[in-house]
Amino acid sequence: MRATPLLRNAPATASAALRERVRRPAYLNKLANSKDLAPLFKIGWSGFTGVGYPKTVPTAMADLAEENKLQENPETKKKFNLFVGASVGPEVEDRWASLDMIARRYPHQVGKEVAKGINAGRIEFADKHLSMFPQDLTYGYYNLRKEHGDLTKPLDWAIVEATAITEDGSIVPGASVGATPEIVQSAEKIIIEVNTHIPSLEGLHDINHSFTPPNRQPYLVTHPMDRIGLTSIPIDPDRVVAIVESREPDNTGKNAPENDQSRAIAAHLINFLSEEVVTSPPSICIGNVANSIIGGLADGPFEQVQVWTEVLQDTFIRFFDSGKLQFATATSIRFSPEGFDHFYANWANYKDRLLLRSQQVANAPEIIRRLGVIAMNTPLEVDIYAHANSTNALGSRMLNGLGGSGDFLRNAKLSIMHTPSARPTKTDPTRISCIVPFASHVDHTEHDLDIIITEQGLADLRGLSPRERAPVIIEKCAHPDYKVMLHEYYERSLKECMARGAGHEPHMLRNAFKFHTNLIEKGTMKISKWD
Amino acid sequence: MRATPLLRNAPATASAALRERVRRPAYLNKLANSKDLAPLFKIGWSGFTGVGYPKTVPTAMADLAEENKLQENPETKKKFNLFVGASVGPEVEDRWASLDMIARRYPHQVGKEVAKGINAGRIEFADKHLSMFPQDLTYGYYNLRKEHGDLTKPLDWAIVEATAITEDGSIVPGASVGATPEIVQSAEKIIIEVNTHIPSLEGLHDINHSFTPPNRQPYLVTHPMDRIGLTSIPIDPDRVVAIVESREPDNTGKNAPENDQSRAIAAHLINFLSEEVVTSPPSICIGNVANSIIGGLADGPFEQVQVWTEVLQDTFIRFFDSGKLQFATATSIRFSPEGFDHFYANWANYKDRLLLRSQQVANAPEIIRRLGVIAMNTPLEVDIYAHANSTNALGSRMLNGLGGSGDFLRNAKLSIMHTPSARPTKTDPTRISCIVPFASHVDHTEHDLDIIITEQGLADLRGLSPRERAPVIIEKCAHPDYKVMLHEYYERSLKECMARGAGHEPHMLRNAFKFHTNLIEKGTMKISKWD
Repeated sequence: MRATPLLRNAPATASAALRERVRRPAYLNKLANSKDLAPLFKIGWSGFTGVGYPKTVPTAMADLAEENKLQENPETKKKFNLFVGASVGPEVEDRWASLDMIARRYPHQVGKEVAKGINAGRIEFADKHLSMFPQDLTYGYYNLRKEHGDLTKPLDWAIVEATAITEDGSIVPGASVGATPEIVQSAEKIIIEVNTHIPSLEGLHDINHSFTPPNRQPYLVTHPMDRIGLTSIPIDPDRVVAIVESREPDNTGKNAPENDQSRAIAAHLINFLSEEVVTSPPSICIGNVANSIIGGLADGPFEQVQVWTEVLQDTFIRFFDSGKLQFATATSIRFSPEGFDHFYANWANYKDRLLLRSQQVANAPEIIRRLGVIAMNTPLEVDIYAHANSTNALGSRMLNGLGGSGDFLRNAKLSIMHTPSARPTKTDPTRISCIVPFASHVDHTEHDLDIIITEQGLADLRGLSPRERAPVIIEKCAHPDYKVMLHEYYERSLKECMARGAGHEPHMLRNAFKFHTNLIEKGTMKISKWD
Repeated sequence: MRATPLLRNAPATASAALRERVRRPAYLNKLANSKDLAPLFKIGWSGFTGVGYPKTVPTAMADLAEENKLQENPETKKKFNLFVGASVGPEVEDRWASLDMIARRYPHQVGKEVAKGINAGRIEFADKHLSMFPQDLTYGYYNLRKEHGDLTKPLDWAIVEATAITEDGSIVPGASVGATPEIVQSAEKIIIEVNTHIPSLEGLHDINHSFTPPNRQPYLVTHPMDRIGLTSIPIDPDRVVAIVESREPDNTGKNAPENDQSRAIAAHLINFLSEEVVTSPPSICIGNVANSIIGGLADGPFEQVQVWTEVLQDTFIRFFDSGKLQFATATSIRFSPEGFDHFYANWANYKDRLLLRSQQVANAPEIIRRLGVIAMNTPLEVDIYAHANSTNALGSRMLNGLGGSGDFLRNAKLSIMHTPSARPTKTDPTRISCIVPFASHVDHTEHDLDIIITEQGLADLRGLSPRERAPVIIEKCAHPDYKVMLHEYYERSLKECMARGAGHEPHMLRNAFKFHTNLIEKGTMKISKWD
């Protein structure tokens, strides 16, 4: 599985739009057609939460594989190790997965076909805290077993999107920064897709150079609007092997709609924050929050809100337009197509109230802790002592991955998880309880969570011991269909563990996963009794 | 349970030693005898890892309770909520626990009687990351349910040790800083024990003022020897209600001795680091490491080592004396009595190569990540996907607590856990496997650990997916008595999970805790088969 020569057929002509965007003339000599770019090997892409990713070259590679039936023959089959800050558009990532072109995919993904490949054992995947992935990449942790080429460069290739290229050859990203700075820093060869469909977003980004220890410096951010870097990503021009024009939009879908449950959760949260903020600093700084909650904030009592987060979705436009959102910074803006249209059309209204930073900075524990961010995130399930599962259904089936949830929840001033109390199937609206005796996979520990919210209520766990937490979580958050069994689990566990002097965090380990095994065996978490 | 009047019998005379240490004369008017200080209510103590804690007042309180049989009568019984940065000497903490004087104990403890009280349900205990406890205290998270007194002050009383008091009334701590700055900041009333047995350690400490958001500032530390604060802890003199002279030493015992197992683990680690450091920056910075490993480093190949950690133990003296340790900073020095004698006698040799900081700084994710610390810690058990249990035996019985393990392992450049592969009983040297299918309590997730070491070998997990990790951990780290069953668990789990398209992190949940339930029911983790 070695890289084959890159350029098969070089001539390509630069459009007027492209000439305007690429201000370093020498790069235009490297202009190529995406369909002429042959398969690559170990690659990194730009992109984060489905925006700012390369669109034409990966598509051309998939076309090539498909048209030539490369994947059907072990001799011609191509599989790639794919490193991207977070998720990218389904038309490339999911398509690659369905063509079995992905051998390894780090450190995040969102896509039905990618998840299927991971869970079927065709794709090796590992979660990493999003703040940590870029530094582990530059530390060389992903090229420990690399045997060919430049061993100091973890990636053979980088394919990154730009909305402009400056005179010195550095690139202005699109709707996300993600891990692009570290990916271009880590690649032997770089292909830049200049997207002329999207406006040049020059000025929207704050690009901080990431040094590795012992040369790393503090991030001198004490306010979400503080700039600490450049407006473009520096690139070594000698490693740029091709420039491609792209005219494709970010392929985002609709954002998740609000519903009664999400509105009930948002109401509990807004009530809680309204009381809390009385005794808190006057500004609130919010991170990593679901679209539906932001809708509640746009209509809520808070003024001059500042946001330090990972991704901005459509409701943030409403929040900006309400005048209540003073400033927001993230590593990506993932609007719906209509949202992007509105955003680009009203660019002057937003551009001074928004900064996009690299994920290493946007998710930095250092800054999240310093700013006292209020962080919110949705788990698959939470247990009665406040351990949360964000990634693996029934302990084993990967859904979307960890993302930046650990970066935010571990370091936030208030760490909040919100989830429906139960999830439905066609035949039973509460077949799966989201409050369980023991989380079947633990991504966030009891030491990290302050508040749990479901549509049933809010459990404030600050200052509570595990024995105090369990009854509160069950009573406030569990669905009524599960309350009795959960209380019984806790009471029996308490009695058994006390009897052997082991009652700090009472469990009956033989029954700890009975909700889950019952779901696997009988299709429901509704059990009739504990053993 | 309200506080009773403090001073019963005020007159006490200041010794010459005390007059020399207390440079603010007005404080001497508040001089009291510890036995005259009556029971207090919600209190914080200075102290960390068994050093730098108040010794005479807590002892006088215990004496009072015992002599007057206060605890035998519900009418006179006194129970206290006790907040200390980490652990303190057993003669006070364990004695209080055995007298049932502790209602609540946050956020760490080490002591047989305290653990017994926690596990018997007499003491409410909750772990918190040691970097986070002081900030949660100043945020008011531990006084949310406080109903009396000054509601803005979480603590009714602080009792703290000093080795000197400056002209402005600020205190020079003893052998630990811990959470003392935030504890005095959070207390309505303060008692200072001036320890004249220990030399004045003025100049050893670096005390940074901890602001809360939105006023928090970066910690401008880019090197372990960087000073960012004062040499003493500022205190509001109006809240100082009593000064007491103490002549007791820190009641430390011997450090854990090295043995064949710990030497084997140290050898694997030193070998690994020797290879790793070839490609790493020239300096290495070590955090949170076991005594026995430091012994290996003192004899190892590394020069100019710098240490950023939580606590320094006896082998650090050897490491300093070897000339290989350039500088060390921590939040406490916990030497054996002989170690302290040597340290104090040779104070001039060490004082410029050592700084003690508050635990909020020593354990700050910000600094640990920036410095690229190599962190090491010992778990109770690690599972085959690298989730680690640091706190609860069989999921429920609290041992010592989390401490700063999460602060270091989440943020280190290299996160290393080392443990014996199995633990003995009198009749079976390998009755308990430390490598298990599913950790019975998760304090550190698979997203946080890079390296697992047992006396059997070293598993380098960087860049590996869960399916790649499991065979490596089992093969390199598990005890031979458990390898076959662990491999079989993984292989069967893989087959079952693949069959239902859920193979990212294969488990048989019905068997996940079978090692543990077998230990509870039959006294051994050695099972004969999986169900």
